[in-house]
Amino acid sequence: MEIRTILVEPKNEENIGAVARVLKNFGCSTLYLVNPADMGDKAVSVASHAYDVLRTSEIVGSIEEAIENSVIVVGTTSKHGISVNKHLRVPFFSPQQLKEKVKRIGEDKGKDNSSKVVSILFGREDTGLRNEELKHCDIVVCIPTSPEYPVMNLSHAVAVVMYELSGVDGRGDLGSMSRTRGMRLRLAHVEDKERLFVHLETFFDEIGYKDHKREKTLLMLRRILGRAELTEREVQTLRGILRKAEWKIGKFHRGARRERKGTRNPD
Amino acid sequence: MEIRTILVEPKNEENIGAVARVLKNFGCSTLYLVNPADMGDKAVSVASHAYDVLRTSEIVGSIEEAIENSVIVVGTTSKHGISVNKHLRVPFFSPQQLKEKVKRIGEDKGKDNSSKVVSILFGREDTGLRNEELKHCDIVVCIPTSPEYPVMNLSHAVAVVMYELSGVDGRGDLGSMSRTRGMRLRLAHVEDKERLFVHLETFFDEIGYKDHKREKTLLMLRRILGRAELTEREVQTLRGILRKAEWKIGKFHRGARRERKGTRNPD
Repeated sequence: MEIRTILVEPKNEENIGAVARVLKNFGCSTLYLVNPADMGDKAVSVASHAYDVLRTSEIVGSIEEAIENSVIVVGTTSKHGISVNKHLRVPFFSPQQLKEKVKRIGEDKGKDNSSKVVSILFGREDTGLRNEELKHCDIVVCIPTSPEYPVMNLSHAVAVVMYELSGVDGRGDLGSMSRTRGMRLRLAHVEDKERLFVHLETFFDEIGYKDHKREKTLLMLRRILGRAELTEREVQTLRGILRKAEWKIGKFHRGARRERKGTRNPD
Repeated sequence: MEIRTILVEPKNEENIGAVARVLKNFGCSTLYLVNPADMGDKAVSVASHAYDVLRTSEIVGSIEEAIENSVIVVGTTSKHGISVNKHLRVPFFSPQQLKEKVKRIGEDKGKDNSSKVVSILFGREDTGLRNEELKHCDIVVCIPTSPEYPVMNLSHAVAVVMYELSGVDGRGDLGSMSRTRGMRLRLAHVEDKERLFVHLETFFDEIGYKDHKREKTLLMLRRILGRAELTEREVQTLRGILRKAEWKIGKFHRGARRERKGTRNPD
């Protein structure tokens, strides 16, 4: 699947550079620009390591050209509809709902297995997409913002939408990304955790923890460690700390016993 | 609940302005700046209608000042941990997981109904948060980005996190969240938790925990207890357990010393 970001008449070259960077951050690199501002050093500087996204962007003269071959066209707006009577901006989708929709599109394999293009239009910095441009769109997405100041900077809006969509095109979400980076977090199994709790009980014996507080405190530890979702290694290390403390207590104990054995306590 | 955005040594005044705008877009207006760059017209121009957020931002000289009164301190990073052996960045949270955590904190109304501060640290544009700074954090959040270009622009990162968190503080669409579960939990403040960590360090001294494993294990404990969101009472009880164990070690120690003093060890 191709997620195609289309900026409609962006006026500020820094914003174009910032959008290029966002796209590379989220692994979505198709950028179309409809009648953009001239771009120079500033766009390149803001794009930083995403210069290639800028360089390979498609500059076109109309939205029709930009959305060619799309299976769905998404319009974004900061103003959502209020009246259900006006269909232009109602019903609007949240970025999360867009994600669900795009996911389903990705799952429906086409007969010819051809690549599916999802086009997402972002409007001008000041006036957004015009009503007749929004009419072209299959769905309208609105990022939930504060009524006090709903209008987001262009590249921030792209960042939020691309963040939500990252992974839906099969390039990997957080989970699979961790896998590709070789991360393997192994959460402790219930049996390991039980052994830790039994160990804590014997530790309480050894430090002479008061009987009437015992049950309550053990339960508290269970709750704390339960909330923390311990990994296998963390359980091991926690038990290591207990063993170390027990050994220290035992050493003095053994030492004291040995000394008592050799000679009477002068007191 | 107060969501406090803390920028640590931001170098670029336009980024500060852009963050102010993001905060106002998402209705989260508390901004702390730790040793920021000088701000002038550019910051104001980029902030646009969020000039008030800039004007009321708190400029402080250290992270410690910025995180005062927080119930939880969140560090953000573009580099997440790979090895489970390194506790500094492992396990990391996604912004979505952070949202769930913050939601839960919001649901636990404190007895005194005092405002709960969730502090979120964002590092320098070029080098992010230092390892030393990340160690202060209860949890680490990493926005899932492409391994090809993982480093986001500062204000984009803030936009993604604030987008996820919008509403969790009860100002937005999650208003129904304010219905309490009838639970009265007072989460421990950062100062209480620091005292616990200092106590753990001295405990490690007393049990003779191996130097080369010390830092790593202390950091692991910080992460575990950070994830668990300790209450005031839990911190007290944990310190009580430590004191009890220390007393036991000290008692045998004192006993052994006394016996040695009274008569020579026959061995």
